Amino acid sequence: MHMVAIVTALSLLEFMAFAMLVGWARGKYGVAAPATAGHPVFERYYRVQMNTLELLVVFIPALWLFGHYVSEPWAAGLGGVFIVGRLLYLLGYVKDPKKRELGFGLSFLPVVVLLLGGLYGAVRALF
Amino acid sequence: MHMVAIVTALSLLEFMAFAMLVGWARGKYGVAAPATAGHPVFERYYRVQMNTLELLVVFIPALWLFGHYVSEPWAAGLGGVFIVGRLLYLLGYVKDPKKRELGFGLSFLPVVVLLLGGLYGAVRALF
Amino acid sequence: MHMVAIVTALSLLEFMAFAMLVGWARGKYGVAAPATAGHPVFERYYRVQMNTLELLVVFIPALWLFGHYVSEPWAAGLGGVFIVGRLLYLLGYVKDPKKRELGFGLSFLPVVVLLLGGLYGAVRALF
Repeated sequence: MHMVAIVTALSLLEFMAFAMLVGWARGKYGVAAPATAGHPVFERYYRVQMNTLELLVVFIPALWLFGHYVSEPWAAGLGGVFIVGRLLYLLGYVKDPKKRELGFGLSFLPVVVLLLGGLYGAVRALF
Repeated sequence: MHMVAIVTALSLLEFMAFAMLVGWARGKYGVAAPATAGHPVFERYYRVQMNTLELLVVFIPALWLFGHYVSEPWAAGLGGVFIVGRLLYLLGYVKDPKKRELGFGLSFLPVVVLLLGGLYGAVRALF
Repeated sequence: MHMVAIVTALSLLEFMAFAMLVGWARGKYGVAAPATAGHPVFERYYRVQMNTLELLVVFIPALWLFGHYVSEPWAAGLGGVFIVGRLLYLLGYVKDPKKRELGFGLSFLPVVVLLLGGLYGAVRALF
């Protein structure tokens, strides 16, 4: 499962970069911790980080289940789409919250496929 | 560990349904992204999602540790209680934040048992 | 991987303690759910929990990747530093948000080392 391990680490590196962008946006837009609101552009960076956190919690277990039960190369490929999708989500959302759809779809759909595929594979393995 | 894998996937599917409910509540109660406040009922859906996220981060590793070190069928059973408890938590919280206690207990207690049991099993395996 | 399993469980126990502190701070500072703002000291406890959640999502997979691909005792040791760092982060942040730096560094740096080391190990294993 080396490929799945590499995709896991890359998706987490991307998330840490998003978190560091939030820290940078705190300084630039004058939103001191512990506040998480106060400037609309800061709030977009913060929502990108939180939404990515929400998806990662599903993505990582789903990636490993799919890699184990269905196909490791397909898991890694879908994981790569997820990572690119998250980057597009960041770039779109920061420009305009309405422009987040393409990036959202490109990261949400791989998670759905990984999760449903992993569930299907585990159910088939049990019976 | 097929049963534990299935419970993992089902708990993540439930979480994705909660996240989609938040998106739906954004439209219904007029709370445009990136805001996460502005209407009391929307805020309940949002808190259900966030609280479930917080618990999932503990639940999934604890489920696997308990399944590995203690008992897989018990892990799957406690995981099933967690999933039902989260559903009751959603239904109670949205009706009235004070009515979230039963669902909270039914999902919090399984997590505590899985985590302490998993820790105990890992310590025993080491010595 | 018993040591890594124990460190995983201990870090999750610490996170659950942080979450219970937020519940206690709700009562003490009069911030009823679903609100997450309203009193500056409550907001510090809440940010400690959220920031720990964000780091845990990276920490746990990184801990296992490092333990698997690089060194289990080093993974467990870095994990122990993370747990102590999070405790210092809590104690510093609640006293004064500006005093959170030492604890932040002591928990952020181990995560970076675990993640980059795990990635390096997985890439080396693939080639």
